[in-house]
Amino acid sequence: MNKSSSLISNLAWSSEIINPAGKRKVAEQIAAMVKDGDVLGVGSGSTVYMALLAISERIKAEGLNVLAIPTSIEISMFCSKLGIPLTSLFEHTPDWLFDGADEVDPNNWLIKGRGGAMFKEKLLISSSKVNYIIVDDSKLVPKLGTNFPVPVEVFPQALLHVEAGLKKLGANNIALRPAKGKDGSIITENGNLILDCRFDEIKDSLERDIKAITGVIESGLFIGYNLQILTADNN
Amino acid sequence: MNKSSSLISNLAWSSEIINPAGKRKVAEQIAAMVKDGDVLGVGSGSTVYMALLAISERIKAEGLNVLAIPTSIEISMFCSKLGIPLTSLFEHTPDWLFDGADEVDPNNWLIKGRGGAMFKEKLLISSSKVNYIIVDDSKLVPKLGTNFPVPVEVFPQALLHVEAGLKKLGANNIALRPAKGKDGSIITENGNLILDCRFDEIKDSLERDIKAITGVIESGLFIGYNLQILTADNN
Repeated sequence: MNKSSSLISNLAWSSEIINPAGKRKVAEQIAAMVKDGDVLGVGSGSTVYMALLAISERIKAEGLNVLAIPTSIEISMFCSKLGIPLTSLFEHTPDWLFDGADEVDPNNWLIKGRGGAMFKEKLLISSSKVNYIIVDDSKLVPKLGTNFPVPVEVFPQALLHVEAGLKKLGANNIALRPAKGKDGSIITENGNLILDCRFDEIKDSLERDIKAITGVIESGLFIGYNLQILTADNN
Repeated sequence: MNKSSSLISNLAWSSEIINPAGKRKVAEQIAAMVKDGDVLGVGSGSTVYMALLAISERIKAEGLNVLAIPTSIEISMFCSKLGIPLTSLFEHTPDWLFDGADEVDPNNWLIKGRGGAMFKEKLLISSSKVNYIIVDDSKLVPKLGTNFPVPVEVFPQALLHVEAGLKKLGANNIALRPAKGKDGSIITENGNLILDCRFDEIKDSLERDIKAITGVIESGLFIGYNLQILTADNN
């Protein structure tokens, strides 16, 4: 029996899932690819939620055995609510993964991390054999950084050291991401802070250069990953 | 007034500080370098403890104003016990730092992390203008890995992904560091695990290559840092 808690129905995605035809089409396309026995890596974003809804309908209708590895507490709760059993990287490797992105450039490089979960998303994308990135047209950009900064997850005590290191790498605007609903800055699910950084140029070495700074846990840059981009029309 | 707790006097360093003449000489050399107003980065190890003892004597005798930035809970408590005021990287940058090491090679590359504090040690060494590494003769090795493995601090959920990444980098023996005093593996002060890794060869790119693996928080490799090595005779 599925747990039903008002805590879960109060979360943003329960009421705010937008439902345009294009997103629903891609969500159904994702759900149609699920095979019995699959272990799915599950990212976040509204199209991901819609795909999970469609997958849960197939589970109910066809009795599919599927396991999900989530990338956040929120997505864990949503899977549980939908009756999709969870597993972890200790037990399974994802057969394939679906996730969103904030920006996709013509090389299929990504910026992710608007939702603050990019560390576990990168861990899962790195672990998964096949990765589908679902975005609507508005996320396709000529070059990374057009609309979104690069988020960098930082060990709190390292904040000023990392800030100095990011400046050396060319970041010209660095903001500590503020929280809403609590005072001060957001805290990630891993207990860290996020610096949102603007760079004049995002070179192919930047992801490694950022990670090399002591105190950086991960960045939201995804350069050179093996990704399939699925585009939902934004209408 | 200094706090006096049996918890502190029960910790290992209270009873186990070995006191050979060579270590005492280097400890006094470190203490003699302290100037009024200095902000000190403080690493760990028995010679570091002896240097702190000698510094606390100068503070008492000469009324020196000194602030210490510690690299572990243990060293924080030891400073407090000795009446050395603490500060943090949010407030100050170390003028200079002293720390130990597990291995030092002829290029002044280091392996650190026997005590599990290498993440904050690297953060402090990276932040400090001048770094003194105090070792006895037994720590000088022709090449890194002679006696010690390379410790790698790992986000728990990333354990198997990082293990696979380390194997690709040539690690041929990887052990999850077990705890004593609790079941299972040790947990660092940052909530992570440690993998102790043997490599056939430690190239100058290895530190960055290890850090680039998603889920790696830091390694105990210090390659190309600005370090002054002080050697204590081991007698």
